[in-house]
Amino acid sequence: MKYNEDETNNDICWGRNSVFSLLEDYPERCSKVLLAKNIQPHIREKVQGLLRSANVVLQYVDNQVLDRVTNKENHQGIVAYSVPMELMDIEDVVSSLPSVPDAAMIILCDHIQDPHNLGAIIRTAEVAGASAVVIPKRGGCLPTGTVVKTSAGAALRVPLAKIGNIAQAIEYLQKSGFWIIGLAMEADETLFKGDIPKRAVFVIGSEGEGIGKLVAKSCDELRSIPMSGKTGSLNASVAAGLAMFEWSRINKFAI
Amino acid sequence: MKYNEDETNNDICWGRNSVFSLLEDYPERCSKVLLAKNIQPHIREKVQGLLRSANVVLQYVDNQVLDRVTNKENHQGIVAYSVPMELMDIEDVVSSLPSVPDAAMIILCDHIQDPHNLGAIIRTAEVAGASAVVIPKRGGCLPTGTVVKTSAGAALRVPLAKIGNIAQAIEYLQKSGFWIIGLAMEADETLFKGDIPKRAVFVIGSEGEGIGKLVAKSCDELRSIPMSGKTGSLNASVAAGLAMFEWSRINKFAI
Repeated sequence: MKYNEDETNNDICWGRNSVFSLLEDYPERCSKVLLAKNIQPHIREKVQGLLRSANVVLQYVDNQVLDRVTNKENHQGIVAYSVPMELMDIEDVVSSLPSVPDAAMIILCDHIQDPHNLGAIIRTAEVAGASAVVIPKRGGCLPTGTVVKTSAGAALRVPLAKIGNIAQAIEYLQKSGFWIIGLAMEADETLFKGDIPKRAVFVIGSEGEGIGKLVAKSCDELRSIPMSGKTGSLNASVAAGLAMFEWSRINKFAI
Repeated sequence: MKYNEDETNNDICWGRNSVFSLLEDYPERCSKVLLAKNIQPHIREKVQGLLRSANVVLQYVDNQVLDRVTNKENHQGIVAYSVPMELMDIEDVVSSLPSVPDAAMIILCDHIQDPHNLGAIIRTAEVAGASAVVIPKRGGCLPTGTVVKTSAGAALRVPLAKIGNIAQAIEYLQKSGFWIIGLAMEADETLFKGDIPKRAVFVIGSEGEGIGKLVAKSCDELRSIPMSGKTGSLNASVAAGLAMFEWSRINKFAI
């Protein structure tokens, strides 16, 4: 059977963890799995087991096909097609969370550009116990294949919300009882000053520019990460990880 | 003038921050800079300024040449050739550090495979005030172009030491007054338990396997990062960042 590449309306994800997560958590969203003909038997058996009760096409293809459809990403011999990931409205995310005064933490990405960074942020968000990751509809990267892979599948589990305007979203989150902390190099207060409210939103800036001026003004507070040396900035996913775990540490969640 | 690609004994690095760092900090290690013919004038002028007193060849080439020599990495129109990066011996690194009982922190990578992770670890090491990053000579990734780029140039500034055998290196560091903390998911104690010695080494495991069994046995102590959700692990560079900043936070360096 010839492999049909005309699946332009679908997302693809690749790599074992990503595809296993999709099949375990959302088999109904998956339409087709491609396995390399020379895939290891235990991977083939695991996929067959996961697909037993799902209505998903399984095809065996040459590795070159997988290289082509993933644009030579590290697919580990396994690729899945799924309906595009749904991004929630922020109102739906917030209404699903514990209400004031209960704890909740949200990450708001101010136009992260690199899918590896967005994936690592979403992965850390799940591990640190964040309730949701909020991303702009336009101008930043969206949760496609590389993001799902880098997130080790967390992008399929952590609620992801899309917003049109960051300043408006911040205002809405403030009204919902959240304290908004923007990470900004120039802030006098440091992330580690010792207290972080139980209901907190961290705003993480883009890789080149940091958080926008208008966004910074909208925050309740700006905090910096103290830095030695000449580099002068951290990778966005490392900075986001420090913020999320500082919230966990101080509020003693899962610690 | 035809561009000569036969520079096989040289490292190459690319991207503005990496090349600027090389030219500012170690111009004597750079043999040649390639700039895209259509590079923005302010970048061209900055490079010309940096090269004024250095003995470095500057060539203008088509973007396709830069795509080819970097294997289509995000070179931003600028590539530099340098003599291969020197990795120090661990004895030389330790003898250059403050002696017992003064503070020092070292990151030991147990076979990190992904150059983006190694680069982000080295970048965070500089920012968090680490004294050195130690990597195995064999079996892990070495600090080549992608590492330098991802590190935002920090790989050119942070002392990098190579070791043949991790367990032996740990023993040597213990004798030099360091307390060795391995990050391991299965550890009962958490990273955030509240104390970290002033002289500390963090051992970071590889992406797939974590730290090796023999390496774990050699550590003075294992600590875990508390985790919610299903993913069950963090990106290696995020985990390393949490460890390094926990040392900074507790010992109040640069905070």
